[in-house]
Amino acid sequence: MSFMYDEAIDGPLPTVDRAELAAALRAGAPKLEILTDREDLRPFECDGLAAYRAVPLLVVLPSTVEEVRAVLKIAAARGVPVVARGAGTGLSGGAMPLEKGILLVMAKFTRIVEVDPDACVARVEPGVRNLAISQAVAQHGLYYAPDPSSQIACSIGGNIAENAGGVHCLKYGLTVHNVLKVDMLTIDGELITLGSDAFDSPGFDLLALFTGSEGMLGIVVEVTVKLLPKPPSVKVLMASFDDIVRAGEAVAKIIGEGVIPGGLEMMDNLSIRAAEDFIHAGYPVDAEAILLCELDGSHDDVDEDVERVGALLQAAGASDLRVARDEAERQRFWAGRKNAFPAVGRITPDYYCMDGTIPRRELPRVLTGIAALSDQFGLRVANVFHAGDGNLHPLILFDANQPGEMDRAEALGGRILELCVEVGGSITGEHGVGREKINQMCVQFKQGEIEYFHAVKAAFDPSCLLNPGKNIPTLRRCAEFGKMHVHMGQLKFPELERF
Amino acid sequence: MSFMYDEAIDGPLPTVDRAELAAALRAGAPKLEILTDREDLRPFECDGLAAYRAVPLLVVLPSTVEEVRAVLKIAAARGVPVVARGAGTGLSGGAMPLEKGILLVMAKFTRIVEVDPDACVARVEPGVRNLAISQAVAQHGLYYAPDPSSQIACSIGGNIAENAGGVHCLKYGLTVHNVLKVDMLTIDGELITLGSDAFDSPGFDLLALFTGSEGMLGIVVEVTVKLLPKPPSVKVLMASFDDIVRAGEAVAKIIGEGVIPGGLEMMDNLSIRAAEDFIHAGYPVDAEAILLCELDGSHDDVDEDVERVGALLQAAGASDLRVARDEAERQRFWAGRKNAFPAVGRITPDYYCMDGTIPRRELPRVLTGIAALSDQFGLRVANVFHAGDGNLHPLILFDANQPGEMDRAEALGGRILELCVEVGGSITGEHGVGREKINQMCVQFKQGEIEYFHAVKAAFDPSCLLNPGKNIPTLRRCAEFGKMHVHMGQLKFPELERF
Repeated sequence: MSFMYDEAIDGPLPTVDRAELAAALRAGAPKLEILTDREDLRPFECDGLAAYRAVPLLVVLPSTVEEVRAVLKIAAARGVPVVARGAGTGLSGGAMPLEKGILLVMAKFTRIVEVDPDACVARVEPGVRNLAISQAVAQHGLYYAPDPSSQIACSIGGNIAENAGGVHCLKYGLTVHNVLKVDMLTIDGELITLGSDAFDSPGFDLLALFTGSEGMLGIVVEVTVKLLPKPPSVKVLMASFDDIVRAGEAVAKIIGEGVIPGGLEMMDNLSIRAAEDFIHAGYPVDAEAILLCELDGSHDDVDEDVERVGALLQAAGASDLRVARDEAERQRFWAGRKNAFPAVGRITPDYYCMDGTIPRRELPRVLTGIAALSDQFGLRVANVFHAGDGNLHPLILFDANQPGEMDRAEALGGRILELCVEVGGSITGEHGVGREKINQMCVQFKQGEIEYFHAVKAAFDPSCLLNPGKNIPTLRRCAEFGKMHVHMGQLKFPELERF
Repeated sequence: MSFMYDEAIDGPLPTVDRAELAAALRAGAPKLEILTDREDLRPFECDGLAAYRAVPLLVVLPSTVEEVRAVLKIAAARGVPVVARGAGTGLSGGAMPLEKGILLVMAKFTRIVEVDPDACVARVEPGVRNLAISQAVAQHGLYYAPDPSSQIACSIGGNIAENAGGVHCLKYGLTVHNVLKVDMLTIDGELITLGSDAFDSPGFDLLALFTGSEGMLGIVVEVTVKLLPKPPSVKVLMASFDDIVRAGEAVAKIIGEGVIPGGLEMMDNLSIRAAEDFIHAGYPVDAEAILLCELDGSHDDVDEDVERVGALLQAAGASDLRVARDEAERQRFWAGRKNAFPAVGRITPDYYCMDGTIPRRELPRVLTGIAALSDQFGLRVANVFHAGDGNLHPLILFDANQPGEMDRAEALGGRILELCVEVGGSITGEHGVGREKINQMCVQFKQGEIEYFHAVKAAFDPSCLLNPGKNIPTLRRCAEFGKMHVHMGQLKFPELERF
């Protein structure tokens, strides 16, 4: 089953004339930038999930809320679907266009409207880059905590759509925990405020519902984020292990002792070697796994935690232990981790980045399961984990030029995610469902649960015009996907039988 | 406008024969405990908002999920409304019964199903008391963080319904931040799991939507909560101020400096004197305000924070500063605060406890506004605040035996909440909307926003059988409430004109 929108499975879409739609938009919003030439549309045909592409019917780049409203009203009146896009860095195809749809690009909404350092909040437009917020408030000793690896490029509007996380979300939470208020436009063009400037808001928590809804409930036009004071001290420990399962056990021990590190990351031997070759981070290339543990806070507290965690890691069987001597070494340790994906890209023609979560205690079992699946499918897997919060990013190595390898990589990825669900986890951590995991949603949820998702969607967008085909599968898709599984005649999780 | 359900405004309810309904329930669930005698029903006629009472049609006390399902199916088939109730300690009338409805009491669901100290989670039934969770996991050095003042009596199911907070929610979050997973029954009797054992769950965040939904979307039958390690050190600072506004400013400074206290509470002179008379906590009775600031964490960190916060408080104009010398004095400092409500009850025939939130920076302005409103209405107000998170609990002192005083207290309460909304806050912090604040919801939200609440409600409960008349006002109610305001011919917030 391909990632492309399938009208038979995902729902029919109307066929609309591009020129006629562009004329209507021009009439409704005379200053609106509209792209219709194939050459202009091509840069927008995919997001970070670049393997799958579709040229949108047209692209609009509004620069005012009124223009967004005009686009939505014209789309709603004609039944044309609308896919919103921030910076297009998403990794699950959430902003992948529809050939029969408008792509609504929020890139011109880049204003930082207000910074209130006393209240520790900033009000920004949705196209502001994640890192730009922290840069704008650095003079006050503040920063915005969620830091996806794409933070230099990704936009806060996209972060809300995907409920983005990052290295520090174990300690500082996901996007949903760092946003106070969102102004959004519904498909009817109505301006609705979700949340408030206070710490809680009455009625149903529509702000949390909206965060991570992947552009299916409305279009963000303004965001109020929480800011945090920069910790005075930050240190990083690197522990080497001869056994990856033991490294997994050490993670549970650290958290179980009540230490909440600023970041707790794990890499396996394949990732270590790839990163070391590329970045020369000073990683031990013979280790089966390393843990990188960042501790932040007051100077005394960090020093105390470094000793405590060091002792825990040694007791957990670490074969070597190093504290970054200075800021330069700390940056090098992290550079290896942050460049692990491109580093793996150097040792394989193609790779496929997964994103699943599991309860931390299941780390050892899932690591063993992934190794078994890797053998079974005959494809190498490099493991790079946000270990502290049980968020896995296995990278499946393959060669798209070898017939069948891409399908096999996709199938292996699906099985890894199903393994995550099997142990009580979920099919996505921080990358979202988008188009990529639409089938796995049928594994994660019962039909009755999927129906409630659709009912909630219908409360905001009854005609299903906002980002159709993403995030929540149609019941028809789950039926088809289920049939496929039965057709293969396999036990659902044979690789788990051994454990 | 009274707190009682009004069919003309809140929606019509069917008239059902009590004996006939009881017979149907007995047939559907033979072992179900059903109360129908007036004497048996009386103890259930109100929750913690005791001024308003209604005798339910009947009370059921199921002891299994199957019995809950049977009750819901029978209610749904007949169109009889169902009000769920935990321990009945809520302060906004969220569990106030309907004369034409079933009261579904979850008091028999008291099992702690599983404690997993390594994963720091516990799986419990909804009737388990908040404090009982912490007691059950204390042997592992863990506790459940949200601690409403009623924690000795209130149930975790009720905590979820109201998204309960407490003294520590500034640092450790509300209920929504401390719950991983909820199993709930829809009005159709379908069992739905919200959230997962992992740190995030794909699709729309229905768990956050459900938390704080006041029994309007489904009935909790099992909860998985997060547990935290007990901090090794806890200290409390008490600062006295000659000026309540300056105390409000000090709060913003502490938070602005990046200290996140375990608790940060404020009391004004009237509360201080009442509490001191009652508890002999050692409070300075001449102070215009005190701040109680609790710091928790590692020993070194707490000692460092105590010094830092002490210096900040002195710089902010504190006239006196004391650190509780030992655990006994710390407990006494808190006993005064925790008993502030009953202490105020000793100096007035009746009082009315409010619950609003504001952005912290607005504390000084709102304190001045409340004083002005108090003068205008001729009623004393004692101020007891969760200052750190801007959650206010003004207590309005009145005498219900004086004609008109109760109405005046209600009106003053309404105006204080509207003042909270005016400065960007909201009409409830941790007590919920329930029946008490149903009219203020019309102030907090635009009609369009209220409509989305109804649409979301309809996604789960299209016939509006779960706790009707609470939390989300009908559009008819907002229209009536609006008319009342216009009829009074007043400026909406005249008391703000001076500032």
